[in-house]
Amino acid sequence: MSARFAHQIRVRYQECDPQGVVYFARYLDYFDVALTELWRERFGAYNTLVESGSDMVVAEVNVRYRAAAAFDDVIEVELDGVELGNTSMTMRWRIVVEDRLLAEATFRQVFIQAGTRDKKAIPGEVRAGLADLASQPSAA
Amino acid sequence: MSARFAHQIRVRYQECDPQGVVYFARYLDYFDVALTELWRERFGAYNTLVESGSDMVVAEVNVRYRAAAAFDDVIEVELDGVELGNTSMTMRWRIVVEDRLLAEATFRQVFIQAGTRDKKAIPGEVRAGLADLASQPSAA
Amino acid sequence: MSARFAHQIRVRYQECDPQGVVYFARYLDYFDVALTELWRERFGAYNTLVESGSDMVVAEVNVRYRAAAAFDDVIEVELDGVELGNTSMTMRWRIVVEDRLLAEATFRQVFIQAGTRDKKAIPGEVRAGLADLASQPSAA
Amino acid sequence: MSARFAHQIRVRYQECDPQGVVYFARYLDYFDVALTELWRERFGAYNTLVESGSDMVVAEVNVRYRAAAAFDDVIEVELDGVELGNTSMTMRWRIVVEDRLLAEATFRQVFIQAGTRDKKAIPGEVRAGLADLASQPSAA
Repeated sequence: MSARFAHQIRVRYQECDPQGVVYFARYLDYFDVALTELWRERFGAYNTLVESGSDMVVAEVNVRYRAAAAFDDVIEVELDGVELGNTSMTMRWRIVVEDRLLAEATFRQVFIQAGTRDKKAIPGEVRAGLADLASQPSAA
Repeated sequence: MSARFAHQIRVRYQECDPQGVVYFARYLDYFDVALTELWRERFGAYNTLVESGSDMVVAEVNVRYRAAAAFDDVIEVELDGVELGNTSMTMRWRIVVEDRLLAEATFRQVFIQAGTRDKKAIPGEVRAGLADLASQPSAA
Repeated sequence: MSARFAHQIRVRYQECDPQGVVYFARYLDYFDVALTELWRERFGAYNTLVESGSDMVVAEVNVRYRAAAAFDDVIEVELDGVELGNTSMTMRWRIVVEDRLLAEATFRQVFIQAGTRDKKAIPGEVRAGLADLASQPSAA
Repeated sequence: MSARFAHQIRVRYQECDPQGVVYFARYLDYFDVALTELWRERFGAYNTLVESGSDMVVAEVNVRYRAAAAFDDVIEVELDGVELGNTSMTMRWRIVVEDRLLAEATFRQVFIQAGTRDKKAIPGEVRAGLADLASQPSAA
């Protein structure tokens, strides 16, 4: 894997449930925070995307839970790769704590005209800015 | 106390923390849900307030925690009284489970022009619709 | 589809994001609430499972988002079917508002020894109590 | 004011509501995160308190909302002072974004025997470790 992005988040008490571990739905929040930070690194604040007339909505998520995180753990949300379609973008994420794999996820997001639900093509600057993260098409 | 309003809410697993009880900040969510239901009973859906050009923002909250609720408890959020000022409304709430008092709260909300942060007088229909819940001025 | 279970939930204001719709991660909370209510209908309070020595952890979720719900909508969380393995249970859920399909999901949960992370076989009474919801093996 | 503590938090998208600002109840989460970080600075991880047999529960909160924060804002949660009673501790907090005051809060927390709801005196090392933050008794 050549290019990579990672963002660290410290688990908050209120993200944990009576089993003493992060409630499973909160992982989706973490992936979204990491996406915002990826955006900042590559394009600036997420709001600039919206101001330029584009936005994203989540179309599909898949999360496989491997192990549990607890209060005060520092988790690392890592981007494994991106696939860029015409209007949609699929990202593969992982969450680890030190050497332990906690969760793997696939997120598919669709670009829309900001303020609507109308799909639109991935903006050129987004495509260019994520190119190094994109999976290579397999040679044929 | 003459007039009253109460709304029941079942505690969700994800509202509880590793101590096994409702996380203290979630009580504010419950009071807000109860306000929405009070609105429905008195005025219809909360959105009709917004559509008529008014909205509310929370200006101050005070919560005293007396006992803890747990997953699957059915709590009752009860309105004890309302004070109507010119632009602001103060509500006294209580949360109980059966006979146990869990929390007492005071909420002060300010009416604003919808879509802005500009204060406005409490709309006449709101004042009228809550009149029976309003505290009586003490006789002098 | 022969057997079915459905649970209604009213969308709370705080579950909606600045796009004005339910934040995508909150759907996982809704599916979990519906599972708790399915449990109540079939077996009583979820805690009785834990008291009997068993618990569940989420192993995998897949959600496909079709349309958005807004504040005050009454969503219906519907169970489409269950597959019972040896230690794990896969449920197919749907969320609708009136005729609109909002989301489809697959949840795989693993039974564990309560208080541990050790897998265990699905308890016999659970298997029996969900039998009518279980997918029929296709005749061959 | 002599001693001070501050912790910065970036506002997450999911903490904002359809008004486009941080939902009022989420501020309580922020104050709690800041308390955890104060603890880390002074005493190490919060769990060490629990392991030593003590824990805290929130007894009362008061929050006055002055202005709104939005997605991606970096808020600063500042501790203004602490009052140490026998079993309870009262903290005054403020949240600011740059020069803007967003919220002021008072939190009263009670020390308990970990795993119970029984009050206990503030542990000596906690009292000592927070002494420089404690309000001076007014000279008489």
